[in-house]
Amino acid sequence: MTPSADFQSWVHARQSCIESTLQNVLPAPDIAPQRLHQAMRYAVLGGGKRVRPLLAFAAGELAMADTERVAIAGAAVELIHAYSLVHDDLPCMDDDVLRRGRPTCHVEYDEATALLVGDALQSLAFQLIAEYRLAADPATQLEMVKLLAAAAGSRGMAGGQAIDLEAIGKALSVPELEFMHIHKTGALIRAAALLGVRCGNSLNEKEFAQIDHFAKCIGLAFQVVDDVLDAEASTATLGKTAGKDAQQNKPTYVSALGVAESKAFAEELRQNALKALDGFGERALRLRQLADFIVLRKF
Amino acid sequence: MTPSADFQSWVHARQSCIESTLQNVLPAPDIAPQRLHQAMRYAVLGGGKRVRPLLAFAAGELAMADTERVAIAGAAVELIHAYSLVHDDLPCMDDDVLRRGRPTCHVEYDEATALLVGDALQSLAFQLIAEYRLAADPATQLEMVKLLAAAAGSRGMAGGQAIDLEAIGKALSVPELEFMHIHKTGALIRAAALLGVRCGNSLNEKEFAQIDHFAKCIGLAFQVVDDVLDAEASTATLGKTAGKDAQQNKPTYVSALGVAESKAFAEELRQNALKALDGFGERALRLRQLADFIVLRKF
Repeated sequence: MTPSADFQSWVHARQSCIESTLQNVLPAPDIAPQRLHQAMRYAVLGGGKRVRPLLAFAAGELAMADTERVAIAGAAVELIHAYSLVHDDLPCMDDDVLRRGRPTCHVEYDEATALLVGDALQSLAFQLIAEYRLAADPATQLEMVKLLAAAAGSRGMAGGQAIDLEAIGKALSVPELEFMHIHKTGALIRAAALLGVRCGNSLNEKEFAQIDHFAKCIGLAFQVVDDVLDAEASTATLGKTAGKDAQQNKPTYVSALGVAESKAFAEELRQNALKALDGFGERALRLRQLADFIVLRKF
Repeated sequence: MTPSADFQSWVHARQSCIESTLQNVLPAPDIAPQRLHQAMRYAVLGGGKRVRPLLAFAAGELAMADTERVAIAGAAVELIHAYSLVHDDLPCMDDDVLRRGRPTCHVEYDEATALLVGDALQSLAFQLIAEYRLAADPATQLEMVKLLAAAAGSRGMAGGQAIDLEAIGKALSVPELEFMHIHKTGALIRAAALLGVRCGNSLNEKEFAQIDHFAKCIGLAFQVVDDVLDAEASTATLGKTAGKDAQQNKPTYVSALGVAESKAFAEELRQNALKALDGFGERALRLRQLADFIVLRKF
């Protein structure tokens, strides 16, 4: 079996594990209020690459974490991600009608329901981290709540979206773009990797910082690749409206650097990410493969 | 000094304590993203009766909790409440322009910012509960995260708002109204009292259930009184648009029972709430006074 086939099967197994975890932790569609619960399930289930949970699994393996614990932590991160997409698609934000090849939540249901879906998914994420036994001790688990809350909040993901809003129609410098994306997508991707680690044996401070650095590079690379794909790919391939960035006059790596240089930057970030894993040997195999998967993806 | 004057000064001291706690835990207005942080502060500071934090303080006193700890827990509950108001006022929900005598957040800023304000306030609430030392041990504190998350989520406050949405234009029975309000406002009011208790010495199971029952009655009474005030008071007195319920064709206790019977129901709930405190003697003084304060208020 080639390493690539082995990695593919690892990915599929983890994706199906996270899918069934999400199925189980989301309130059943027949529990009141039914329409809200159905809309929450619609927004979360049946789509997405589950990149953040995959990172949690890969980082968890490095720390020899229990897979079931990582599945819950990864599901919590994915719920935060899913809520941000639902709110981001609303008319007052990106006003998008297509997501993962299907109508967005507010199109399928209505705006008010989509608003509440996002709100309730965020609450559920924190409930998961507090409700299940995920770490060696409750103090570590409280650290996990704090880590996820900081990554989601005004100095993390939500803050990145606010910076994004203010940037529409402006030409940002590359450092300004980086500042935006480190918040908007980077914070949650870092949280995914670090939560995966926290589910396992504790790493020393230096090792923890290495994983953090890896995740920071990969988070940024993810966004650079996203910008390239938005500029180059078709709506059918992406499962969401392509070319939206240029249409909405949003600053992107492609608009700042051009396609070729953006690709070179993503590759540089991948190399930096891999370098951060040098000390971990075989334990970091899945993280290395994921770095390649994220940077070299076509959708 | 009459008991009433003593209670008034207790209320004022606690209100000013919660105000300064909120001032301190909200990101400073000059921290990036500035506009988001300014809007978060606008939405939270300088208004509101702070009923939920007051309940946390009163319940905390019963459990001999440290005031500084209760202030953080109460602030977290108030952040959840404030986020729900910001989202509730949005055009796709209640579409309201006035709150606490000032323009609502989306009117003063814009819709997208108001959406992110709500999202970020929710994250901040959970960050507070995880970041500060609030309880005797981290396991209790994790319980507090879970309690707040459940109260805020789809089977608590957000669920109550979904039920509210579906109820517009319908005539609900009194049990249906009760189901809606136990979720919409009741869940968070219960959480406030229970979090206050969790900051202090642990109560036995029966005592904890008594406080829960007290808070459940008071939460419902709060809503009944709200409905009466909305029907009877003026916009100037309320600091928010009066008569909205009837105008939006929302089912209320007033529409189901009439004003006189609604008042009688509120009084019955207050009596039930007080009865739940019977075993606590003087330790429950502030909870008793708060019950009166909530049911007999004029705004």
